[in-house]
Amino acid sequence: MRTGIATVCLSGTLKEKMQACAIAGFDGIEIFEQDLVTSPLSPEDVRKMAADLGLTLDLYQPFRDFDGVTEDLLAANLRLGMDTILVCSNVATATIDDDGLRARQLAALAELAGDHGVKVAYEALAWGKYVNDYEHAHRLVEMVDHPNLGTCLDSFHILSRDWDTAPIEDFNPDKIFFVQVADAPKLSMDVLSWSRHYRVFPGEGQFELAKFMGHVVRAGYTGPVSLEVFNDVFRQSDVERTAVDAMRSLIWLEEQSAKWLDANAASVSNGRAGNGGAGAKAAGRRRYPMELATLPQVAEPAGFNFAEVKAADTAALETVLGQLGFEFNGRHRTKDVQLWTMGHARVIINEQAPAAGDSAGSPAPAIAALGFDVDSPVIASARAQQLKAPVVPRKSQANEEVFQGFAAPDSTEIFVCQGSPDGTAAWINEFGETREFGAGLEVPSGSRNAVIDHVNLAQPWQHFDEAVLFYTSALALEPQPYAEVASPSGLVRSQVMQTSDRAVRLVLNLAPLLQQDGTRHKTYQEHIAFAVDDLVATARASRDRGLDFLQIPANYYEDLDARFGLDPDFLATLQDLNLLYDRDADGEFLHFYTATVGSVFFEMVERRGSYDGYGAPNAPVRHAVQYDHLHQLTK
Amino acid sequence: MRTGIATVCLSGTLKEKMQACAIAGFDGIEIFEQDLVTSPLSPEDVRKMAADLGLTLDLYQPFRDFDGVTEDLLAANLRLGMDTILVCSNVATATIDDDGLRARQLAALAELAGDHGVKVAYEALAWGKYVNDYEHAHRLVEMVDHPNLGTCLDSFHILSRDWDTAPIEDFNPDKIFFVQVADAPKLSMDVLSWSRHYRVFPGEGQFELAKFMGHVVRAGYTGPVSLEVFNDVFRQSDVERTAVDAMRSLIWLEEQSAKWLDANAASVSNGRAGNGGAGAKAAGRRRYPMELATLPQVAEPAGFNFAEVKAADTAALETVLGQLGFEFNGRHRTKDVQLWTMGHARVIINEQAPAAGDSAGSPAPAIAALGFDVDSPVIASARAQQLKAPVVPRKSQANEEVFQGFAAPDSTEIFVCQGSPDGTAAWINEFGETREFGAGLEVPSGSRNAVIDHVNLAQPWQHFDEAVLFYTSALALEPQPYAEVASPSGLVRSQVMQTSDRAVRLVLNLAPLLQQDGTRHKTYQEHIAFAVDDLVATARASRDRGLDFLQIPANYYEDLDARFGLDPDFLATLQDLNLLYDRDADGEFLHFYTATVGSVFFEMVERRGSYDGYGAPNAPVRHAVQYDHLHQLTK
Repeated sequence: MRTGIATVCLSGTLKEKMQACAIAGFDGIEIFEQDLVTSPLSPEDVRKMAADLGLTLDLYQPFRDFDGVTEDLLAANLRLGMDTILVCSNVATATIDDDGLRARQLAALAELAGDHGVKVAYEALAWGKYVNDYEHAHRLVEMVDHPNLGTCLDSFHILSRDWDTAPIEDFNPDKIFFVQVADAPKLSMDVLSWSRHYRVFPGEGQFELAKFMGHVVRAGYTGPVSLEVFNDVFRQSDVERTAVDAMRSLIWLEEQSAKWLDANAASVSNGRAGNGGAGAKAAGRRRYPMELATLPQVAEPAGFNFAEVKAADTAALETVLGQLGFEFNGRHRTKDVQLWTMGHARVIINEQAPAAGDSAGSPAPAIAALGFDVDSPVIASARAQQLKAPVVPRKSQANEEVFQGFAAPDSTEIFVCQGSPDGTAAWINEFGETREFGAGLEVPSGSRNAVIDHVNLAQPWQHFDEAVLFYTSALALEPQPYAEVASPSGLVRSQVMQTSDRAVRLVLNLAPLLQQDGTRHKTYQEHIAFAVDDLVATARASRDRGLDFLQIPANYYEDLDARFGLDPDFLATLQDLNLLYDRDADGEFLHFYTATVGSVFFEMVERRGSYDGYGAPNAPVRHAVQYDHLHQLTK
Repeated sequence: MRTGIATVCLSGTLKEKMQACAIAGFDGIEIFEQDLVTSPLSPEDVRKMAADLGLTLDLYQPFRDFDGVTEDLLAANLRLGMDTILVCSNVATATIDDDGLRARQLAALAELAGDHGVKVAYEALAWGKYVNDYEHAHRLVEMVDHPNLGTCLDSFHILSRDWDTAPIEDFNPDKIFFVQVADAPKLSMDVLSWSRHYRVFPGEGQFELAKFMGHVVRAGYTGPVSLEVFNDVFRQSDVERTAVDAMRSLIWLEEQSAKWLDANAASVSNGRAGNGGAGAKAAGRRRYPMELATLPQVAEPAGFNFAEVKAADTAALETVLGQLGFEFNGRHRTKDVQLWTMGHARVIINEQAPAAGDSAGSPAPAIAALGFDVDSPVIASARAQQLKAPVVPRKSQANEEVFQGFAAPDSTEIFVCQGSPDGTAAWINEFGETREFGAGLEVPSGSRNAVIDHVNLAQPWQHFDEAVLFYTSALALEPQPYAEVASPSGLVRSQVMQTSDRAVRLVLNLAPLLQQDGTRHKTYQEHIAFAVDDLVATARASRDRGLDFLQIPANYYEDLDARFGLDPDFLATLQDLNLLYDRDADGEFLHFYTATVGSVFFEMVERRGSYDGYGAPNAPVRHAVQYDHLHQLTK
């Protein structure tokens, strides 16, 4: 698949955009007129720079109705060395709805373009005045039947209108001059604003893009597949990083399209799309004019292998984990890390070197890394690297397990580890057997099966969509519909990513802006939640050990009573232990939170029945109490 | 008018919200259930705190369909000492569209509420399943005819659906239990999302709120007028500041409602609304049960009196102004400021003390203050202060003009000055006659009538709406529809505020987030534009004096030619002098920009014919060149 991207997707100058596209590995770019007009580079400079960078110049977008396309414009196109110009269906100047007239105008344009050696790709805008359906645009192209006139298929304009994409298969591939792809969240708003501000890269929204691409591939199209994503956030973000995010989305789309084709091989029609299709099916593999690259295949992770927190002063973390009932499993024999375990839940405390000089600069406790159980760490790591995840080096001595790691967009380090059926991890033998803290403590029976239930990470506003695609593509997690939770600092957007069996649940929170400071949000608190069999017992034991619980206000329990009419003894127990409660048709959820250490706190949960949520109705209480506590500290 | 505000409008804890409301001067508040449930304060604590703060507790909002209202909830209401609960029309649980059934349910609810001494205000939500029209809700209230059941009128639910508000006048005021007001920009999106995220305070959106309130007043309503504004930005902003913004919006709405009533006195019906209406009209003044306070009246400003820039090192500013053709009019006799003039355009350079120690902390050149010509500075200043603008002290010696000043939301200091018909200003005599720089320079004839054409200020994201209301209410500027301009750092939202005669034009720019750093945006450039009669002559003279023009790329002129087909000599002149050009049906616009000094640059413009814009098509070129320049500097 030939990959491309429109310059309008990215921030920066035309030169910066082109360099970032080359670094990210794109084959070609589409140039928007405005990027050229505002650039100090002449068209010839742009042409040479593209050649030097190994980028093809695939399409020029003047953003005009086709009666505004002049000889000057076509000449400029040629100076860039481009042979294709995009012309959109009329939104304003057209006054007559007459396909015959439109065909004559398009024919004249194609003739003019032909005189200059330029091809015209005609596209139906979703909000076109008369032509807003891609099949209509294609019919006009067929009517004109000129070698310099074809159509451009843009997934946004097609899928935002819910048009059926199957008819694409029957298009003559010679008449498809260009394919543009964009994803989008499903929003109920006017389609023009939706298109201009909220498009995202494939895999970051809710459109069925693999299916769209499947039909395009079956039609026999072999040209560029180019991203055209108007997004207010991407236009403000670091250009090189966004270009990598964009490239990742096409690599992922390529794989997903191939999978869709495999899964839907039976439905291949006998028409043009069958070139290779039917025969390939018989041979057990597909073959289409467009080659689709594949990635190393991974299943969803089987669970969390560990969570890692880091701190210069680890005392407070050690205390809280001990109070929760974690056992100290000693220090690593060669690294400055500690292992703490409770049942199958493993927490590594990474002892950071204090900052030289004053202690204020020393790293406060924060979530640093997550380990996931996978079938093959090597394959999973290879897949992530092909998806352009930066490798995280972690030194290992001989006879120690090698950790394959890469960095997530929020800078959390992700390690893919060898899972084992019994839930153990071979690397724990690298830790000493000392049990200094917690030795002799009674481990409550309800904690013996403890596991990491979920991890909640804050995401910077400019990298939220990137994170969703990253965890989707590199770790095979599935994004769920997002929720918005009220907090005293603003609404928090909460995006759950999980495996189908819920063995891994990751919650990405887009924090209010004033709680963000650059790439990671030290003022926004993140947490690790552990599931136990008996939360009440765990809470009692933790209280006996002196745990500092997050204090839940009395009003909460009155409201709980009004909402659920709980047994008075049970309600009293909840209130006594600062436990929170939720219930739905599938089951019940009990949980409590610890006070915060640095930017980290911990949660203990018990899931009863098939309860599948996170106690979302309780989140505002948690946010309010944490906010209050933080403000009292900083006053 | 009794003023109120819902706690959901503000950030922070319930306690912080209540304190901020009291400081801002509200009479009462509406409490949202979630704010109480998440608070460590008991209902009795809240009741006492409200009394101590002088706030009434006007309404409790449990956010439930009315079949969810229980005795527990009504009891909680009483513990707060509130007598009114809001119940909204059903959006989900209702399955039968039957007014008879609904009336029986509402009657039962009113009876239950009556037993607890609580009144129920029933409101039609804009997205109610069957009841989504305020007249429908009112009909149900009339059907039930119970003393404990009335209706709540919410301007958003009414105006978002474009319902006619005139029928409100015929409502029995005893059946209107509550009035909520919110403004909003007109957006084409689903009304629920619009309501939950994009409401703004009155005067910050596009709803006809004065008319709505006029009808409410004529109906004879005397209860609280309470803000209920769900806004993602306000929920993240400083609570005390937002509360002041909110209070300002009600003060302004009160005045606008009185004006609407005056202007529409003739159309008063003879019904209930006439109590006082007809008689008052005969007596030349209105009188209604609700008293509407007025503000000191001001006309729109007659022009800019001056613009002030500040810097620790003023050399670069002096050089640029001199090169543009400004004359140095000496230093002030008692203050560390310089006066520079060109025709009627006056620029003050405020010499800031350098920061102690290293020079890096010294203030870079920035726009500091704007002076406006008004009829009466004392009245204008009194109005601004009643609108809660903070006073800016500026010391004056005897015999010096006293500057009445107050601070705008973006921290720009606004001074209201005595205008004079001939465009002079008395205070210039406080400056020495020395003309050190520019003495002997030829002032080109085209500059003799120079005036400040417009000033462009950057606004922090969390105070943009506040700024629009501020300049509307305190300075009588009129907001125009906003534009979005592409820049390499993201889209820039550009909001023009101007007088009807265009003597004052102020452009508020909401800069991309990454260019913002706290309250003022040092990386986002602001500018002052001057209008002259002959831009080409001004540009030539400036070039002769060595001005560093913003360099416009050659591609721009090719595009200009393609778009407008300009005379080749004229085009060559434009390109030679780095001039930009725009044209519309009303006239032409020529302009150029200087290089940036600190965070300030200057623009010179010439308006030909009745051209009324700002060369918006050229703004992306300006942004791109400035961005490129800034990046080269910081590399």
